[in-house]
Amino acid sequence: MSNIHDVAKLANVSSMTVSRVINGKGYVKEQTRRKVVEAMKQLNYVPNGLARSLVRKKTHTLALIVPDIRNPFFTTVARGTEDMALKQDYRVVLCNSDENVKKEKHYVEMCLSIRVDGAIVVPASDASKQNIKLLTDFGIPFVLIDREIDGVKADIVRGDSIMGARQLVQHLIDAGHQHIAIITGNLSTSTSRDRLLGYQQVLAEAGLGFRPDYVKESSYSSALDPALIDELLACSPRPTAIFTANNFVAVQTIHFLRQRGLSVPEDCAIVTFDDYDPLSLPEPFLTAATQPAYNFGSLATQMLLEVIDGVPVPSPRKMILQPEVIIRKSSVTHTR
Amino acid sequence: MSNIHDVAKLANVSSMTVSRVINGKGYVKEQTRRKVVEAMKQLNYVPNGLARSLVRKKTHTLALIVPDIRNPFFTTVARGTEDMALKQDYRVVLCNSDENVKKEKHYVEMCLSIRVDGAIVVPASDASKQNIKLLTDFGIPFVLIDREIDGVKADIVRGDSIMGARQLVQHLIDAGHQHIAIITGNLSTSTSRDRLLGYQQVLAEAGLGFRPDYVKESSYSSALDPALIDELLACSPRPTAIFTANNFVAVQTIHFLRQRGLSVPEDCAIVTFDDYDPLSLPEPFLTAATQPAYNFGSLATQMLLEVIDGVPVPSPRKMILQPEVIIRKSSVTHTR
Repeated sequence: MSNIHDVAKLANVSSMTVSRVINGKGYVKEQTRRKVVEAMKQLNYVPNGLARSLVRKKTHTLALIVPDIRNPFFTTVARGTEDMALKQDYRVVLCNSDENVKKEKHYVEMCLSIRVDGAIVVPASDASKQNIKLLTDFGIPFVLIDREIDGVKADIVRGDSIMGARQLVQHLIDAGHQHIAIITGNLSTSTSRDRLLGYQQVLAEAGLGFRPDYVKESSYSSALDPALIDELLACSPRPTAIFTANNFVAVQTIHFLRQRGLSVPEDCAIVTFDDYDPLSLPEPFLTAATQPAYNFGSLATQMLLEVIDGVPVPSPRKMILQPEVIIRKSSVTHTR
Repeated sequence: MSNIHDVAKLANVSSMTVSRVINGKGYVKEQTRRKVVEAMKQLNYVPNGLARSLVRKKTHTLALIVPDIRNPFFTTVARGTEDMALKQDYRVVLCNSDENVKKEKHYVEMCLSIRVDGAIVVPASDASKQNIKLLTDFGIPFVLIDREIDGVKADIVRGDSIMGARQLVQHLIDAGHQHIAIITGNLSTSTSRDRLLGYQQVLAEAGLGFRPDYVKESSYSSALDPALIDELLACSPRPTAIFTANNFVAVQTIHFLRQRGLSVPEDCAIVTFDDYDPLSLPEPFLTAATQPAYNFGSLATQMLLEVIDGVPVPSPRKMILQPEVIIRKSSVTHTR
């Protein structure tokens, strides 16, 4: 492997000049710069930390595969991941699976192709199992975030969806609601199943019957089908509150309710998992079970880097972080 | 380069079985699966389209470097990029430069390290020039989005910041405002300079003097310094309207104004570049010059793929997309 001195020799300049060209600092004549770059190419010299990582057969690159990069929850996870990775001199490439197992597979194959040192995955669904297997087969260390996969034992950082759901639904019951509907995410994700379970548990404990027609399955990311709202509104009695799968579903639900002439929370209260945006204007509106998304990212990255560095750790490790419920206007009426 | 038949031969199974293992479809005994994977590793066989891309010395991977992945504007750019890329069988890795030229450099180096076929860059600032040079030096095709760099001739897709700024400020003047302040992004970005220019042009045309104390420089992404708001409020006369750099700055400005007991728009109107979120609750609030962010991404990707595919095109190509101003409550008072 050639070094900076080889480049200097071939280009017939000083090492200092090569260094200036690489770092883009200090004055270097354009003609000289070109000679240096030509020499770098000829010698296949890779500047900076890259050389070191190539020697160590490492790319110092991690992949973070999330289902929906538009969701503030996942962008916050990404920030946590990136901050922790950069502290330890790793870069993070973000991949957006779009809650789609096939697209996710493309990105897992890319992880192999570009030789990432490790991957952090929020699985699109239980069917992500085959993609996870690819990582295992090719010896790429990984940590899961947010969603468990049935039958896969792996390091994971996730929230407590059952607990969050229980608190949200209990809040609605305490406010006097007896007819509470739920719009879930795709039930092939563990978080959707857990949120439905928490909902069912609390209804049962309160002696309120479980009504299958109050349960609608949607998706965390795709457009909400307004027909689902119409079906809920056609139920008798009509639900007076809806527990939505996540922030995106909540916002769309409120939008469709308003289109149909209903007010939130007066005609229908809304509670949701995952905050929408605490700065949303003119003031935050949604009652939400918020999760420490940044910590999801930073803790998972720390766990992954330990594995990459060969630190002896028990396996698999499971880290469960508690949600915090914030009550806001979307579920509180003064007149009730 | 070994193919699926070599793998089948070494593993002593049929090609169909190898294909099943690769695609994760159909039943394969666990023991057989392991044999196949072992053979794939031994032969250094890379599944699927990857093999083809390696032959062509392509990774079929593009990099998209944006300054702030939390900003809905850039996540929408990312969606446009990804959709267009996937149509043509390319994957996109997202990199978050945090408006930081040094961090951006890390990601440009990564582009070299993992051998992306091309890069789409929203430059952190004019100082990104040195990073762009790295791409040029190593022959990686690229297209810029959103921000021009002084002295760099490159393909670009961007908005018309001067026009958007002109329309926003004209709207304020038409509504009777004479004391209009501006909080810009970092003036080392072309968009910030253009927005300031549009503001100055319209003030001059309306015969309203330009007051340097009405101009505050902030950043598109970092936390807004509340001292800037205090300085504006201490001006005499106090501004009755503020034109903010982007959605994030707008939201923080409104937050700080409210903390100081001022109402928007009654005490101070707000207009901004880039929409915050058309679904923000309980209803959209911000008067904004919105830009077709999705098209920024998809058009830039199309341009890049043409270059990668060797399509003969004039160079550099510049595509300028017009903003659309949407008037909402943040700038409209009934009593004025």
